[in-house]
Amino acid sequence: MAARLVPVSDPGDPRLADYVRLRDVNLRKSLETEHGLFIAEGEKVIRRAVGTGYPARSFLMARRWVEPLADLLDTVDAPVYVADDATVEAVAGFQVHRGALASMERLPLPPVEDTVAGTRRILVLEDLVDHANVGSIFRCAAALGIDAIVLSPRCADPLYRRAVKVSMGAVFAIPYARMTNWRDGLDALREAAGFTLLALTPDQSAVPLDKAALGERVALLLGAEGDGLSSRWLAEADERVCIPMSGTAMANGVDSLNVVAAAAIACHALMRS
Amino acid sequence: MAARLVPVSDPGDPRLADYVRLRDVNLRKSLETEHGLFIAEGEKVIRRAVGTGYPARSFLMARRWVEPLADLLDTVDAPVYVADDATVEAVAGFQVHRGALASMERLPLPPVEDTVAGTRRILVLEDLVDHANVGSIFRCAAALGIDAIVLSPRCADPLYRRAVKVSMGAVFAIPYARMTNWRDGLDALREAAGFTLLALTPDQSAVPLDKAALGERVALLLGAEGDGLSSRWLAEADERVCIPMSGTAMANGVDSLNVVAAAAIACHALMRS
Repeated sequence: MAARLVPVSDPGDPRLADYVRLRDVNLRKSLETEHGLFIAEGEKVIRRAVGTGYPARSFLMARRWVEPLADLLDTVDAPVYVADDATVEAVAGFQVHRGALASMERLPLPPVEDTVAGTRRILVLEDLVDHANVGSIFRCAAALGIDAIVLSPRCADPLYRRAVKVSMGAVFAIPYARMTNWRDGLDALREAAGFTLLALTPDQSAVPLDKAALGERVALLLGAEGDGLSSRWLAEADERVCIPMSGTAMANGVDSLNVVAAAAIACHALMRS
Repeated sequence: MAARLVPVSDPGDPRLADYVRLRDVNLRKSLETEHGLFIAEGEKVIRRAVGTGYPARSFLMARRWVEPLADLLDTVDAPVYVADDATVEAVAGFQVHRGALASMERLPLPPVEDTVAGTRRILVLEDLVDHANVGSIFRCAAALGIDAIVLSPRCADPLYRRAVKVSMGAVFAIPYARMTNWRDGLDALREAAGFTLLALTPDQSAVPLDKAALGERVALLLGAEGDGLSSRWLAEADERVCIPMSGTAMANGVDSLNVVAAAAIACHALMRS
């Protein structure tokens, strides 16, 4: 099968509707939800998305990016819109440095219980709203052997373009699911699946992470930077754990890590058994 | 002493020259070097900069930000330019969400040997070019008890606005210095100051960080994401250390952490003794 190259030159071409204003978060959220799509950007990420089994709806790129992706484009039954840089920029709303864009079809997320079946170490993200943080945490989790990630109902979308990009495609490598119910979500994990729930908190009176007893199945709960975990989740956890801070830092008021740094340290600590 | 409030309304006012086009990296680099200044953004960061002893050249803010900073502005001998949001945005080139800006005077950096005197755990950053990464690493290092940071000659400036902001002011809390010479810089650290040099590498054949022998004085070398440490520095280190990756991740090609996540895990590991 040969790639279906389709030259385009009009930024208003309705066939390019999947790619409009990629930096307009509100527009993109509603557009992507309505049409069940997400955007992959750059050769590496596109290869991972296709390799994971997401069906491609279409591609959009300047001519020079066709050749590096030719082997993949030849195997995919989707149009490849080829435009000059100015047209791509006019559609996307910014200069697309990584060259190629793909519009991919979302797949239905499995239920939480299916996603965590057979896993030993998972993260549970509560209401992280920053897409870059979510993407970075997926990257850390994948590299450090976390088996799956569960998202609270309001947590940011891992398939949002910026999350996908920052994750370097790790959002495709690690299974994840979204709780349908924030209130009972933790109970379900503990009671049905037998996870020990560890709540990560900056509170230095909590158990240092390296000293926490890790059971057979551990779910580490991470809250958003700033607010941290909700008091409900903190209270429902089996144990509150912390990353010990330097005494000097505390005295200087430099007393916190960003959520990605904290997640990285925590994932590393979970690898120890 | 009362704050010297100076109403301004012309974005071209030469007294606001320190604040022009804050997102124009090339312009800012030359302007800040030439005038020996840096920009602090937001109440918290400004308080830390002033508290650390950097002299203020001036402030620029909308009227509503004066009150929260009034106690500090009353103690500082520098003009406070007060403008409406549109004027601030016209000068800075973007909408300044955190409200207040301060132009601060740089202080001469101490020599490397003075900065590392009496320290036990330091980071040495080789040619990190991303300001956000540098700022994030300072934040991790400060929170996790690193005593000082040494920069290679070409490493990005920790006092660049974005680095300062991302660091949450940690760039003021942790002493740092810049090598004058990349070629001999490591020798000087080892021979004059007695540091054991550990080079962090993604290469999984290196010694796992948690197993590395930590001497009395340890300098952890971090390279830029992508290229990593130069072969010269890798060869000059006393030991090459790595963060163990998950076998599944390696098989899936998700085989790397971003440099901030790696730095966070490494700083945490250095705290163990």
